[in-house]
Amino acid sequence: MIGGDGIGPEVVAEGLKVLDAVVGEGVVTTTHHDLGASHWQRTGEVLPDSVLAELAQADAILLGAVGAAPGATDVPSGLLERGLLLKLRFAFDHYVNLRPSRLFPGSVTPLSPAVTGKGEIDFVVVREGTEGLYVGNGGVVRAGTPAEIATEVSINTAYGVERVVRDAFERATRRRNKVTLVHKHNVLVHAGGLWQRIFATVAAEYPQVTTDYLHVDAATIFLVQDPARFDVIVTDNLFGDILTDLAAAVTGGIGLAASGNINPSGAYPSMFEPVHGSAPDIAGQQIADPTATILSVALLLDHLGLTEEAARVEKAVLADLAERSGQRRTGEVGDAIAALL
Amino acid sequence: MIGGDGIGPEVVAEGLKVLDAVVGEGVVTTTHHDLGASHWQRTGEVLPDSVLAELAQADAILLGAVGAAPGATDVPSGLLERGLLLKLRFAFDHYVNLRPSRLFPGSVTPLSPAVTGKGEIDFVVVREGTEGLYVGNGGVVRAGTPAEIATEVSINTAYGVERVVRDAFERATRRRNKVTLVHKHNVLVHAGGLWQRIFATVAAEYPQVTTDYLHVDAATIFLVQDPARFDVIVTDNLFGDILTDLAAAVTGGIGLAASGNINPSGAYPSMFEPVHGSAPDIAGQQIADPTATILSVALLLDHLGLTEEAARVEKAVLADLAERSGQRRTGEVGDAIAALL
Ligand SMILES: CC(C)[C@H](C(=O)O)[C@@H](O)C(=O)O
Ligand SMILES: CC(C)[C@H](C(=O)O)[C@@H](O)C(=O)O
Repeated sequence: MIGGDGIGPEVVAEGLKVLDAVVGEGVVTTTHHDLGASHWQRTGEVLPDSVLAELAQADAILLGAVGAAPGATDVPSGLLERGLLLKLRFAFDHYVNLRPSRLFPGSVTPLSPAVTGKGEIDFVVVREGTEGLYVGNGGVVRAGTPAEIATEVSINTAYGVERVVRDAFERATRRRNKVTLVHKHNVLVHAGGLWQRIFATVAAEYPQVTTDYLHVDAATIFLVQDPARFDVIVTDNLFGDILTDLAAAVTGGIGLAASGNINPSGAYPSMFEPVHGSAPDIAGQQIADPTATILSVALLLDHLGLTEEAARVEKAVLADLAERSGQRRTGEVGDAIAALL
Repeated sequence: MIGGDGIGPEVVAEGLKVLDAVVGEGVVTTTHHDLGASHWQRTGEVLPDSVLAELAQADAILLGAVGAAPGATDVPSGLLERGLLLKLRFAFDHYVNLRPSRLFPGSVTPLSPAVTGKGEIDFVVVREGTEGLYVGNGGVVRAGTPAEIATEVSINTAYGVERVVRDAFERATRRRNKVTLVHKHNVLVHAGGLWQRIFATVAAEYPQVTTDYLHVDAATIFLVQDPARFDVIVTDNLFGDILTDLAAAVTGGIGLAASGNINPSGAYPSMFEPVHGSAPDIAGQQIADPTATILSVALLLDHLGLTEEAARVEKAVLADLAERSGQRRTGEVGDAIAALL
């Protein structure tokens, strides 16, 4: 467990409550790791190797959120993102960043009834998690001068693209047999060409799966005009980052959006986290919605092969969402969902 | 005039109709250039230097859309984008890619009344047009093998960022005095740092302008949950590409979205084009909506200092939108708007 900053510890506590309730008290051994902005402010440590080694022993990791309060000018930009979150994703080879988007009955969408009436919104984004612009390659020369140049390099390998595309097709066969590739190959011709060719090769092995392609800009249009058209979207790291926030907004907000940073081989522990951030403005008040974290627990259970338990958690969340009314405290939401299991 | 492919020539014809109607028949001398996918298929030429030299003599360029029919496997990916559209943007140093988004009365939005009720949606995106991932730097090694690596390099200069950020602030002073920077500086720390520092420096010169910052993923959430919060958004080339399609979808669809590829210095002709593509599936049937092109003509007039004429075109489009009912032919829409001038 990495509670992290802001509302992180509060929502993780509810995730753990539901986890214990569904598998039975005492079945899961948990270790809490204090990491994040405030830990760094107190200790100067972001993610010590010793902690990384301990985390490597876990079956799975549940993370709340990391991120300093907006006023904290002492935390350099990217310190926690690159040094903690992305370091974990890379160290544990989380090449599948799985983000389901479902418009649950009872949740509020910014879309009009004309759009939501087009069909059920239920898709997953399989976001590549270890390559692209996220590798951190690039640099700055002549910084702070009028001659400054800053570069960012997107690195994409056949190895990295093939494994995540294959994962997307496998997931599609357990869903509605449709995969949409999202890229921008008309401008990013090198990376786009690689993605397109590998996508076509893998697709040929799955004749039962229907495929299509959208440029990332066009994909945002479909996400607000006809999101029911999607089943599985596979895309690169940055496009996936953007599309999954939009998808979360469309399906009830980031208060409900769960995610898994998955290493399908099991060689390393996978990590589950809500898509939302640490929301320092509402921290410590027991007003954050822990549902995204609880749905992340469902993904965690599913990943560990506890599919029946995962389904029970999801069903309890659905029942709770349908009943929701008024403002409840963070702990009350966790209690309610645990009681519905 | 570059009609281009698909519906391009049809919508450009209506743009020209309205242009002639507002400045007076015979005032504007137009030259038509046949460029695009079908021109390439017939001649093997994308954009000959001689045509580029002729275009350089124009006061402004109006472009419809370029792009082959989906079946046309002979047109390599990126050929027209890199070889024509981006070549023009780069050759004529169109560093301001201006994309206004306004929810006009009478146009259909996919957003719910709860969202549109939050306030008037009327913002512009100032997208950088000459740098970032669009520079075309990158490559492929070991292509087609399991060891393939593809790279894309985003190049950002202080020179390039400063001029577009300054343009955004200037525009804000003629609007509601608010500028939002959109980037992803927590992951793209090199380019993001450059954008942030320059943004802060320029902002200091405009004390009357309120500023804020959003990560690109969060910006997509606000675009669907509270688009009324935006006045001027300034962002890099790729983020701008993505956000402006989403913004167009939110404000009535890409059938209404106009854009200007602007060189503010006037050293080169600026180019105006609808955000939509060539839509080959509906080409030649007179069913495309020319409104985005007609609004692009308004941007063209405004850029040339004909602000009164620009305002008249925009007013006529607004009046037409408010009256619209039933299906009209492409030419009928142009006639109706011209008659309303
Ligand atoms: C915090 C940031 C590094 C992260 C990302 O960009 O992946 C976040 O936006 C997410 O989507 O999990
Ligand atoms: C066609 C393509 C090169 C272009 C872009 O990416 O800029 C288009 O999407 C646009 O937004 O004008």
